[in-house]
Amino acid sequence: MKCDFPPPFGIKGTYNLQFTTVEFPAATHRVADIGKELIDKQVVLHGYFGTVRKAGKFLYFSSFHDYYYPNPARPLKVVSYIDTPSPQTTKTAHQTLGSLHQFTPVALRASVYKCAPSKSPEKRKSDDEVELRVKEIFPLNSVSENLIYTPKTVFPLEKRHLQLRTTKALCEALRLRSRTASECRKFLEGNDFLEVETPLLFKSTPEGAREFLVPTRKGNGTCYALPQSPQQYKQILMASGIPRYYQLAKCFRDEDLRADRQPEFTQLDIEMSFATSNDVMDLVEQLIIRIWDNILGVRIGPRFQRAPYWWTMKNYGTDKPDMRYSNHRIKSLHEALPHLAKAGRSIEGFIFYGNTPNYNTDQATELLEEFKRENPSAGGDNYVAYIAGSGKETQAYIEGGMELWHEVDLANIHGALWVHRPGAIVVIKERHGYYSGGNTKLGLLRTALLNKAVEKRLLRGRSDYAFLWVVDFPLFSPTTDDPSQPGRAPFSPTHHPFTAPIAEDIHILRSTPHRVRAEHYDLVINGIELGGGSRRIHEAALQKYILEKVLKMPQEKLQQFDHLLEVLDSGCPPHAGIALGFDRLIAVMMGRDSIRDVIAFPKNTKGADVMVGSPSVVLDKELQTYGLRRS
Amino acid sequence: MKCDFPPPFGIKGTYNLQFTTVEFPAATHRVADIGKELIDKQVVLHGYFGTVRKAGKFLYFSSFHDYYYPNPARPLKVVSYIDTPSPQTTKTAHQTLGSLHQFTPVALRASVYKCAPSKSPEKRKSDDEVELRVKEIFPLNSVSENLIYTPKTVFPLEKRHLQLRTTKALCEALRLRSRTASECRKFLEGNDFLEVETPLLFKSTPEGAREFLVPTRKGNGTCYALPQSPQQYKQILMASGIPRYYQLAKCFRDEDLRADRQPEFTQLDIEMSFATSNDVMDLVEQLIIRIWDNILGVRIGPRFQRAPYWWTMKNYGTDKPDMRYSNHRIKSLHEALPHLAKAGRSIEGFIFYGNTPNYNTDQATELLEEFKRENPSAGGDNYVAYIAGSGKETQAYIEGGMELWHEVDLANIHGALWVHRPGAIVVIKERHGYYSGGNTKLGLLRTALLNKAVEKRLLRGRSDYAFLWVVDFPLFSPTTDDPSQPGRAPFSPTHHPFTAPIAEDIHILRSTPHRVRAEHYDLVINGIELGGGSRRIHEAALQKYILEKVLKMPQEKLQQFDHLLEVLDSGCPPHAGIALGFDRLIAVMMGRDSIRDVIAFPKNTKGADVMVGSPSVVLDKELQTYGLRRS
Repeated sequence: MKCDFPPPFGIKGTYNLQFTTVEFPAATHRVADIGKELIDKQVVLHGYFGTVRKAGKFLYFSSFHDYYYPNPARPLKVVSYIDTPSPQTTKTAHQTLGSLHQFTPVALRASVYKCAPSKSPEKRKSDDEVELRVKEIFPLNSVSENLIYTPKTVFPLEKRHLQLRTTKALCEALRLRSRTASECRKFLEGNDFLEVETPLLFKSTPEGAREFLVPTRKGNGTCYALPQSPQQYKQILMASGIPRYYQLAKCFRDEDLRADRQPEFTQLDIEMSFATSNDVMDLVEQLIIRIWDNILGVRIGPRFQRAPYWWTMKNYGTDKPDMRYSNHRIKSLHEALPHLAKAGRSIEGFIFYGNTPNYNTDQATELLEEFKRENPSAGGDNYVAYIAGSGKETQAYIEGGMELWHEVDLANIHGALWVHRPGAIVVIKERHGYYSGGNTKLGLLRTALLNKAVEKRLLRGRSDYAFLWVVDFPLFSPTTDDPSQPGRAPFSPTHHPFTAPIAEDIHILRSTPHRVRAEHYDLVINGIELGGGSRRIHEAALQKYILEKVLKMPQEKLQQFDHLLEVLDSGCPPHAGIALGFDRLIAVMMGRDSIRDVIAFPKNTKGADVMVGSPSVVLDKELQTYGLRRS
Repeated sequence: MKCDFPPPFGIKGTYNLQFTTVEFPAATHRVADIGKELIDKQVVLHGYFGTVRKAGKFLYFSSFHDYYYPNPARPLKVVSYIDTPSPQTTKTAHQTLGSLHQFTPVALRASVYKCAPSKSPEKRKSDDEVELRVKEIFPLNSVSENLIYTPKTVFPLEKRHLQLRTTKALCEALRLRSRTASECRKFLEGNDFLEVETPLLFKSTPEGAREFLVPTRKGNGTCYALPQSPQQYKQILMASGIPRYYQLAKCFRDEDLRADRQPEFTQLDIEMSFATSNDVMDLVEQLIIRIWDNILGVRIGPRFQRAPYWWTMKNYGTDKPDMRYSNHRIKSLHEALPHLAKAGRSIEGFIFYGNTPNYNTDQATELLEEFKRENPSAGGDNYVAYIAGSGKETQAYIEGGMELWHEVDLANIHGALWVHRPGAIVVIKERHGYYSGGNTKLGLLRTALLNKAVEKRLLRGRSDYAFLWVVDFPLFSPTTDDPSQPGRAPFSPTHHPFTAPIAEDIHILRSTPHRVRAEHYDLVINGIELGGGSRRIHEAALQKYILEKVLKMPQEKLQQFDHLLEVLDSGCPPHAGIALGFDRLIAVMMGRDSIRDVIAFPKNTKGADVMVGSPSVVLDKELQTYGLRRS
């Protein structure tokens, strides 16, 4: 049935419209189901035609596909052929096919035929066994005439629906994501974890990064806040007698968006009572091994390497080293430069020597030039970088602000760095203060140089996986100007104020808090921090001590934790947990650099969904409902 | 290891504190694992002791339990006995047990013994086969001395952790919820549905109920909005070539909270391309049948009853009738009162006669009195209610504002309502206008009377399940003063502006829009609307026509749908879907009236989480970050 309408309007200036209806035959099969056993049978399929090739007025060739998951099938060959005795529906169908817009959704009634043997030998190799002969076509929507694309068309984020439709990797990412979520749930439920949903309308807390506020109509500045993680709620669950909790939780962070950040993201959130850090790490290892095995088909494990924070910082200048490239370690020049060491200065360096046949002094020089251009020295951030044996060493040391050069030092430095042959790139930098944060300056230079070397094929890129637990983080870090810094102390919690200190460091909490290690663990895969967790403080007294006496939190902020202290004080068992970035996990599994490639509708770097146009400007009237106005 | 601290602080005024550590033995078993086969073995368990009964200085009895899911085990019997040759650790453990706070989490090292045969015959029946003899106790937290409760203690929502710990039904609800989510996912994934996460930071739209706004730091009133449902995104997914989508989606509604509403809730969201309404209803029937079978162990089906909106409104005065109580239908008095019918007035009524042995005229009178007190007549909302044969009929008609009384009418009315014996409660009311909304006034009275009758045991309460699809809703409803009403027309979409009209009604869209039926379906279980869905408009032209010409949406609002129109215009297949209230589903399965009883951390009727104290007043400084201030 067609329902013609007087056309007083139209889409984008066209006025020829009629509303089709949805009276179409139900599908008898999917494209994937069509095979030899259906030869000579009639079938109904729902889907889309490929381009139509006209071999004359009476003979058209095309293909037909649907998008069924989990295994989208190869398109089927379609033949539409009519002659005089053909029934009228077939003739109409033939005509329809000839004029159909390529992306029209259709219901297709067709007969399954054995493929005619092809005349050309290379085509005969094709494993098409059957083809469809068109009997009747039901077009199910009109399609904009402006919509034209080829397999090479690249769509912007504004047209995410067309990106999704045409980008194979994106669809694969979504399927992998769905399957991985399933696998996680199966594993955790098999281990007696209970899935519990925790509120998203939470409370503003001084926990870490910035939060999004959600004003209420109560006015007076009364707001919910979107949670950065379900941390508090899951600790409450532990005290509520739920021994094992998990959730694929939505989390929010209102901070500047780096390449790998989204204002909203998903994390696999886990917490176990009566558990130690080891229990959690063991569990996550099993989970990751199972995912890699069942979904990627890659055997890993059985155990992941573990390294303390100070060790990764000392050797790689980062708390998330890519252990696939674990040579080129950073070395201290303490003994090589005793006069500087005596003056209390810490000089460190590393050398790089490529491992591909491409690598020679010329290539190294080019790499170094480019690297120095992209990582300019500036003020106090000077560094020394040169090719060993190039004769430019002296100049490099002077430019790098280390004018303490004489022959003995150079020999000592090269000895300490194990420079055995000319052509190695040497990078040297002074380090100030003790290790804190995610990277030293030299660590960032090292990572940048290695990435550049892989890009220029002077270092062999690797596609395997290196797993690492980084442990023994400092419990506190020097305070940055983060407005969410909770207390008046000159340091703040490295992760959050609920992380337990390592037991044997508790006695120095007050005297030398910056030396206290946290029972925190980060999981790093291929240099990417996939998530982190910790044993939590489960004793009210210790929690209060840290908030009040160590972090020196003012009374009004302390009050915001009253409920948590009461919960801990009511017989809360020891507990530990972890949160794994689910988007990042999928990105790592897909080998993608950006989590944007594994999210159906990501925000861009400005936090905007350019397809639907969010965020948008809200009317003053609407703001007033919430007792607010623009300042 | 204990780590004593100089006590300069404390919890709630107490100052005796020391931090315990978490060096405790790993559990070898769970409580559920302990049985005959472990007799004479040593085990380590994590959990909690019950109350300790002291049978003298050297002999204590207690019990031990943990909270393991999915099957929390019966507590084990515990005996602690010491004499002179007992080792020191056992003596210390005995002492510890004697003074331990009941809710202390502990690691317990114990031996499994065969139960000593009890002397009292009734105790001998107990199926305890083994008991634990205490060897060593590791207390793992201190517990507030103020924490005392018995099995009868009822905690307020502020102490949700203690509610969760002590309320069996609440824990069961959470377990059932987790299992049901699992079952839904398994079923849908088995039917090739892809789980896709859609954004929660969405855009303000004129879709329906009020939205929560999320201001951004861009200022200038730029806000995200939290979604009321993933409706638009799932339609975009259909156009993106994802044939079957599902998600357990978080949704938000900033509206006054009724008993059964929460500002945030979970819905099982489903959408299928190339699908008709029937396809979706069939799928959901299969899903519900499977859940009832696998989780509740109740066989239902194989098909659910279907009824059009007008039929349920006519017969029950509601669009969500409880079909377990499907007699006591509402009947029209059109023919019984021809003089009123001629005057264009619609009078309707129903009778109630109890089905329990309790029911007699006295009981009915009492029921009616109470019912009338709770449902007072007021102004235009008068109604007539009396006991047939009580002699008070005339008075009731006068009080009800229907002063058109004479003997013939009463006989006619009772004839039409099938009043065959005295003692029946008769309720009569005039209806104004055509059917719209969820209930007629008489329908509300009917539901109230039946509920009251069940409560007073005059109507047999039923614990079975009645499933009903209500279909053929009106596409538009008269406009209320809802500020989110999208257009300037005197009516608005009954559900949302994307619902497809029934094909054969399209031609009257412009002439008599209020008569157009929607291809919408609601699933009703036991009088509770569990969710609803529809075939969506998949043609850009029809969608634009409805927004622009039928709803008369102003241009600036129309623009907010540009992206959707473009998506429909790019070859979007026909599609239909549904959203089921997941919280309500669990509440129905648990036989609970309120969804609060099946949510781990619900908000109260004021939208507050009184445990953590959200929402809270935010500092002006923080509002300024978002370019806002209080008005």
